[in-house]
Amino acid sequence: MGRWEPDAQGRLARAALELYAEQGYEQTTVQDIAERAGVTERTFFRYFADKREVLFDGAHTLERLAVAGVAAAPPGAGPLEAAGAGVVRGCDALADRFQHARTRAGVVAANPGLQERELLKMAALGRAVAAALRDRGTPEPAAALAAEAAVAAFRVGFEAWVAGDGRRGLDDHVRAALAELRALAGG
Amino acid sequence: MGRWEPDAQGRLARAALELYAEQGYEQTTVQDIAERAGVTERTFFRYFADKREVLFDGAHTLERLAVAGVAAAPPGAGPLEAAGAGVVRGCDALADRFQHARTRAGVVAANPGLQERELLKMAALGRAVAAALRDRGTPEPAAALAAEAAVAAFRVGFEAWVAGDGRRGLDDHVRAALAELRALAGG
Repeated sequence: MGRWEPDAQGRLARAALELYAEQGYEQTTVQDIAERAGVTERTFFRYFADKREVLFDGAHTLERLAVAGVAAAPPGAGPLEAAGAGVVRGCDALADRFQHARTRAGVVAANPGLQERELLKMAALGRAVAAALRDRGTPEPAAALAAEAAVAAFRVGFEAWVAGDGRRGLDDHVRAALAELRALAGG
Repeated sequence: MGRWEPDAQGRLARAALELYAEQGYEQTTVQDIAERAGVTERTFFRYFADKREVLFDGAHTLERLAVAGVAAAPPGAGPLEAAGAGVVRGCDALADRFQHARTRAGVVAANPGLQERELLKMAALGRAVAAALRDRGTPEPAAALAAEAAVAAFRVGFEAWVAGDGRRGLDDHVRAALAELRALAGG
């Protein structure tokens, strides 16, 4: 079985999250995940390098979309505006995965090693956004400052999103955090 | 020898940094460090938990000063102003250690594991500054946003400082980055 089943990757990701939430991340093995998804361990490793990767495979899409969003910002947009457009675009990576994101956030919050990994992924997102800003002509240190501020707004918006009921979109939360940041800096 | 010598901790830190810069962090052992400092390995472990700790022992002082700086900001100061006052105060932890900071930055930049540790220490600084802001009545998400923005300015100022010749103070670089951040957000 496995390679004949549709959406094995999606079922593996759902099975992994369910198990991490039910019995703990440390206690869950790849074998447990494969069994619940109804595939072999070999199939698991076709899609994920290890059990941690299940939680962080969305980071690539988020980063790619954020970089594209920065590049697509109007030529006249300032650095923080362009960086903000990037992280708002990045929200598309997660927009229709509220329950997944919420369960995942609980799993990460319960495990210091996963929290560290999350921080490092956010730092990588900041570096990618800064590089995209430099590509459109923003000099340093403006690029680094705007990128880190926008990623801080993304994190704050993301936390508000997963703490809520999901009716308000992630992009809306992130836009609100960006507006709050502007208000703070202008005050 | 060792415990009769004055400033064994300072000599150990200098010896460690010299060796990390000369022969690489990975290649340096605690025995190498103790030998160069003229003390025993036992003396090393009286001051540092391991060879990585030599590079990060200043983080506690930085965090403590930053938190005190936030608490000491005028009652009427806004969240970003208070967070900025905190990270500027934190500069006192490093102000007279330019050569040390510069050599250390080179060692950290050459080692991905140390870079990760540095990012995590900066994230911890952000959380401490955010908590200090909440203690003076700043609500969330303003506290988290102001703290992360101020820490971003600290990092940018720090990088400019160690990239220069040290004549301009760290606090001056950090103030300039905070001003740039305000200009970006107001633009």
